[in-house]
Amino acid sequence: MYDIGRSKRAEKAYNLDDVAIVPSKRTRDIDEVDLSWRIDAVGLEFPLMAAPMDSVMSPSTVIDVGRLGGLGVLNLEGLWTRYVDPEPIFEELARITDPTAAIRRLQAVYAEPIRPELIEARLAQIRAAGVPFAGSLSPKVVRDYADHAVRGGVDFLVIRGTTVSAQHVSSKENSLDLKQFIHSLEVPVIVGGCANYHTALHLMRAGAAGVLVGFGGGARRATRNVLGIEVPMATAIADVAAARGDYLDESGGRYVAVIADGSIGGSGDIAKALACGADAAMVGLPFARAFDAPGRGYHWGPEAWHPSLPRGLRVHRRPIATLEEILVGPSSVADGSVNLVGGLRRTLASTGFVDVKSLQKAELVLV
Amino acid sequence: MYDIGRSKRAEKAYNLDDVAIVPSKRTRDIDEVDLSWRIDAVGLEFPLMAAPMDSVMSPSTVIDVGRLGGLGVLNLEGLWTRYVDPEPIFEELARITDPTAAIRRLQAVYAEPIRPELIEARLAQIRAAGVPFAGSLSPKVVRDYADHAVRGGVDFLVIRGTTVSAQHVSSKENSLDLKQFIHSLEVPVIVGGCANYHTALHLMRAGAAGVLVGFGGGARRATRNVLGIEVPMATAIADVAAARGDYLDESGGRYVAVIADGSIGGSGDIAKALACGADAAMVGLPFARAFDAPGRGYHWGPEAWHPSLPRGLRVHRRPIATLEEILVGPSSVADGSVNLVGGLRRTLASTGFVDVKSLQKAELVLV
Amino acid sequence: MYDIGRSKRAEKAYNLDDVAIVPSKRTRDIDEVDLSWRIDAVGLEFPLMAAPMDSVMSPSTVIDVGRLGGLGVLNLEGLWTRYVDPEPIFEELARITDPTAAIRRLQAVYAEPIRPELIEARLAQIRAAGVPFAGSLSPKVVRDYADHAVRGGVDFLVIRGTTVSAQHVSSKENSLDLKQFIHSLEVPVIVGGCANYHTALHLMRAGAAGVLVGFGGGARRATRNVLGIEVPMATAIADVAAARGDYLDESGGRYVAVIADGSIGGSGDIAKALACGADAAMVGLPFARAFDAPGRGYHWGPEAWHPSLPRGLRVHRRPIATLEEILVGPSSVADGSVNLVGGLRRTLASTGFVDVKSLQKAELVLV
Amino acid sequence: MYDIGRSKRAEKAYNLDDVAIVPSKRTRDIDEVDLSWRIDAVGLEFPLMAAPMDSVMSPSTVIDVGRLGGLGVLNLEGLWTRYVDPEPIFEELARITDPTAAIRRLQAVYAEPIRPELIEARLAQIRAAGVPFAGSLSPKVVRDYADHAVRGGVDFLVIRGTTVSAQHVSSKENSLDLKQFIHSLEVPVIVGGCANYHTALHLMRAGAAGVLVGFGGGARRATRNVLGIEVPMATAIADVAAARGDYLDESGGRYVAVIADGSIGGSGDIAKALACGADAAMVGLPFARAFDAPGRGYHWGPEAWHPSLPRGLRVHRRPIATLEEILVGPSSVADGSVNLVGGLRRTLASTGFVDVKSLQKAELVLV
Repeated sequence: MYDIGRSKRAEKAYNLDDVAIVPSKRTRDIDEVDLSWRIDAVGLEFPLMAAPMDSVMSPSTVIDVGRLGGLGVLNLEGLWTRYVDPEPIFEELARITDPTAAIRRLQAVYAEPIRPELIEARLAQIRAAGVPFAGSLSPKVVRDYADHAVRGGVDFLVIRGTTVSAQHVSSKENSLDLKQFIHSLEVPVIVGGCANYHTALHLMRAGAAGVLVGFGGGARRATRNVLGIEVPMATAIADVAAARGDYLDESGGRYVAVIADGSIGGSGDIAKALACGADAAMVGLPFARAFDAPGRGYHWGPEAWHPSLPRGLRVHRRPIATLEEILVGPSSVADGSVNLVGGLRRTLASTGFVDVKSLQKAELVLV
Repeated sequence: MYDIGRSKRAEKAYNLDDVAIVPSKRTRDIDEVDLSWRIDAVGLEFPLMAAPMDSVMSPSTVIDVGRLGGLGVLNLEGLWTRYVDPEPIFEELARITDPTAAIRRLQAVYAEPIRPELIEARLAQIRAAGVPFAGSLSPKVVRDYADHAVRGGVDFLVIRGTTVSAQHVSSKENSLDLKQFIHSLEVPVIVGGCANYHTALHLMRAGAAGVLVGFGGGARRATRNVLGIEVPMATAIADVAAARGDYLDESGGRYVAVIADGSIGGSGDIAKALACGADAAMVGLPFARAFDAPGRGYHWGPEAWHPSLPRGLRVHRRPIATLEEILVGPSSVADGSVNLVGGLRRTLASTGFVDVKSLQKAELVLV
Repeated sequence: MYDIGRSKRAEKAYNLDDVAIVPSKRTRDIDEVDLSWRIDAVGLEFPLMAAPMDSVMSPSTVIDVGRLGGLGVLNLEGLWTRYVDPEPIFEELARITDPTAAIRRLQAVYAEPIRPELIEARLAQIRAAGVPFAGSLSPKVVRDYADHAVRGGVDFLVIRGTTVSAQHVSSKENSLDLKQFIHSLEVPVIVGGCANYHTALHLMRAGAAGVLVGFGGGARRATRNVLGIEVPMATAIADVAAARGDYLDESGGRYVAVIADGSIGGSGDIAKALACGADAAMVGLPFARAFDAPGRGYHWGPEAWHPSLPRGLRVHRRPIATLEEILVGPSSVADGSVNLVGGLRRTLASTGFVDVKSLQKAELVLV
Repeated sequence: MYDIGRSKRAEKAYNLDDVAIVPSKRTRDIDEVDLSWRIDAVGLEFPLMAAPMDSVMSPSTVIDVGRLGGLGVLNLEGLWTRYVDPEPIFEELARITDPTAAIRRLQAVYAEPIRPELIEARLAQIRAAGVPFAGSLSPKVVRDYADHAVRGGVDFLVIRGTTVSAQHVSSKENSLDLKQFIHSLEVPVIVGGCANYHTALHLMRAGAAGVLVGFGGGARRATRNVLGIEVPMATAIADVAAARGDYLDESGGRYVAVIADGSIGGSGDIAKALACGADAAMVGLPFARAFDAPGRGYHWGPEAWHPSLPRGLRVHRRPIATLEEILVGPSSVADGSVNLVGGLRRTLASTGFVDVKSLQKAELVLV
């Protein structure tokens, strides 16, 4: 603890940029490392989920991610469930370059109501492809549309907001009781963002199959500027990983997946998130750089279109490769943005660790 | 304490940028949070004061801020009390783009003497609008014009300088005895800037209803470059908040408002200032970005026009919204500059705190 | 140790930029300092090796460095051993300005197979000049080509990869046993990069004459972005220097040279690397700024042309002086990039140390 | 002490930028503060010396500084003592904009030999003006020209080099014994730069009237890049001030002036240097911004023209005011670059300290 002043103390918290992985005294053949992981009953080839943001996940890119071995998540409150044909809107948005004009237009197009029948249709389309997938709803509306998601055949329901707690204070009679709600659902739930030990522990006790760590969607700096809230990612992951361990103990063996959601710029960040204790990472921005991403070079999350208090930017990133290349290579750039899975595999080889669980025990340094 | 060298030690001090608020394990409905506060006998809807700087506060914008629920403060040594019609001067200043030329012209236009009858006239105009308001004078001239301010009907007199102490050393016979002066006045006094425990405690003992924390007016960097003086804001607030608690105890219950004055760039900074222990924030720069601000895109404080040693810059900021939108929204930008009150309300909802007094107890991290 | 979060701790590590040398209470005549050093049986005039990177070391520049008193190292997996006449390729590469296009072309030209007869021919050419020199191979292919290097007459074989360990885990039967391999060779081996105490100690026990500290080749930031791996250089050197001392003790007197490889931008960095405990520095980028460097203003290492996961950039640096001027002066620039040896000599004079071994004991400060 | 790695520790050192002055609980009338100081037998109005650099000090500007109340120092190895009429050279240099070309030309023009008769003539010209003044020589040539300086009538001889020690190691018979030399001179000596306790203590014991703290002449970054040497200024001053106290004790009352030389960008830095323990500051760069400075908008020190290893840049700074305005105001800029004395006076008033000796005891914070 550090003294901020005579009446206030604070702990130091660390971002992924503040830490780095130290190689062990071993190295390992790159074809002898294992990236597979499991969440609830689903096994996956590598520990990457694609973030439920309209700029990266459409029904077809959810399928692409699933076919390549990851887990795609469709935003069930996005343009795909508000419009029968959202493609013209994506095209129009991509023609707006001014950031403020873009947010104004986002506020307008997302004012269109969600159409439950579109939720089911989009999900059915993915379901037909036979890959694992998930759909995402915010805490505010999750009870209104969860049934449609379940009927759409999702493997997981993701409940995702800027900050989500298992103890929402409200005098309204119909406010969400998360524990009751999760237990009433027929599919496992992944829920977040959260960023500290106690909140995560409560979410685990509420029955989550996975918790999202972070304040989601690439909006870290905006959340800090607008709300003053931030818990740097390395610290948040390490705290929530401690909750996973304690909950494993108190529950007599239930292992809840810890998924880093936010601040992931490339393969090095993914490796560091795992080394801090995460089981997987939810990735947004890197996929927005795909030639075939729906955002056409732009990236935004649900924070960007809040009607009275936007808390995330629409950012521009030059497309650099196909979604497949970004996920599994090959790459011709040296910044960790392409071949995320290959980078992670190489990290294990170079540091001598055999799988994600052993990487979680890697030595870190502050840099 | 850290060793600077063999003969010198120093404490580490923190800026608002160095800290962030950690969400609690609760969240809260946004329409169930309470931003109201009280200073002396006046209750206000939200804890924001508008800084007495000519670029943001004119008689009409003081009224606007009051009507929206905040507390506007008119600079009683500014252009409005030196000129019958200052509008042409504001227009002329807005046409000067060179920073040094701007300061030269500021030095010239502020060399015009203050006209006491204008003080009364401007304040009477505000008074007629029926909103709470305050007027501001510097320690050097406060005794000359305080009576005019009182006659003008201010709810509070603000005594504001770069550094103000209750123990001014002077061999001159007529030097200001702050305690005596405050007790002789008919209106409550808000006084500062101060930045440490002892100075604040003395100001409280001198009878202040509120103390301003910081070296005022957006001139932090200039004060550091010109004078070598700085006490970073998070530390200053936490120190002065400790003085508030100790004075509450020693006075048998007098609660003096701690008002963060300076380094407030947007809603996130306001939230952090409150979380460090402030009761309210005095805001300048964010209001200078209003389409209807008197500064027409420029912002300056009294430090900028000192005749021989200017200690603040005139800065340019592109106007982005109306004063009303900046205060209470709606917003279409994601940087905390618009909808300050909405941002603060959202901070309480996201962190689960019910009001400002509980936010003061929020957990902070160093980031 | 610092707490990253509840389940993770980390040590703080330092880069060369984080430290500086403190002068002692003495100064010394500049012509009375001694820069000579010895590795295995070879004595050299100053503690600088030239990195085995195609952009700086060709057969002729290896000779130039040797004649001036340093130790040049030829990359035996580079363009000089893949092409009979690589000059046109260097010229073509220098005409490509786009970084991604450059990496794509590097991937293509390095796909050409290594020709063992060229290894011997290039080395024989250097051998004929009568200067000490070395050749470099990566761990993956060192057994395939080491005999050709030895037949070429190298004084040292350098085994160099991003991370090299003495305990490579592989289920393949023919995987490299470093200790056995080193003992079977007729020439002394310098091996790395490594960056911590235990890995270095293992490499010393495996019989290395010198260990390279760092993750080689100017690719520090890329390694961090792509793999999440980093051990800042000042800390890495000080850790490996500790291994040198402990191994000296356990081996009954075998002194293994510690060679800083990476993060060396100029003479100040070399001085700091030695003051952290290195015996010598391997220099790449500074030599790429020679008018007569093969890279023609561009600089890249083997990390840049990995076929599926490049982990180093091709960077552009404006040539500023001849290779001779960069090594031994005279200089007309004041940034440590020219007259590396003169700068190092001046450091000893200004700090009062007589030679490299005494500079290793210099007092450092964190800056 | 911090661990750099297993075999190396380091103390943390601080620059002036890292610290700031905390106001005391008092304030003071600005016309009741006292800036006067005394070194040896000479009393001066304010604690500023002008650095012996050709770009700021000519015979006429030495006189100007003296008349305004400061102490000017002429570089006795500069253009004024090598050329009968150096003005055309200054003009030519001001027309060269390329940094490397400028250093080349500096190397050439300073290759001209020093003419002893010019030393005496320049100093006699200053002497005739009746102001206190000093002349400066480097350790290498001080014995050759000191007599001429004394005959020229200097009040102080300044012996100034990048690093100066009282224990110079040399096998040459005629190497400088500083103590003997100082005692043989008829004028008091100010000597440096030094940057730590022991070196300073030795210089004090050698008989110095003042010691210069720092590595002189604005070349801090270059010294670090070229030599790896740096002792940040706040720490260096606090260490040398400790030596002043200990020497005062051991000598039975001899008070040696501690003069901060380097890293002084404006009035805030001067205030901080004094608050760290300095008695005065030697200022270079701020004076180079005078319309009437000899450098005509350029600034360089003796490090810039070393024939084989330049260690300082020639920098360009736009002129902003007259030398008189820079020293004593008035100012129309808010960055501490103009009205250095007024800024220092204001610092004392705002912090409540009465003079420099009390400012040395000011509370500092790390910022």
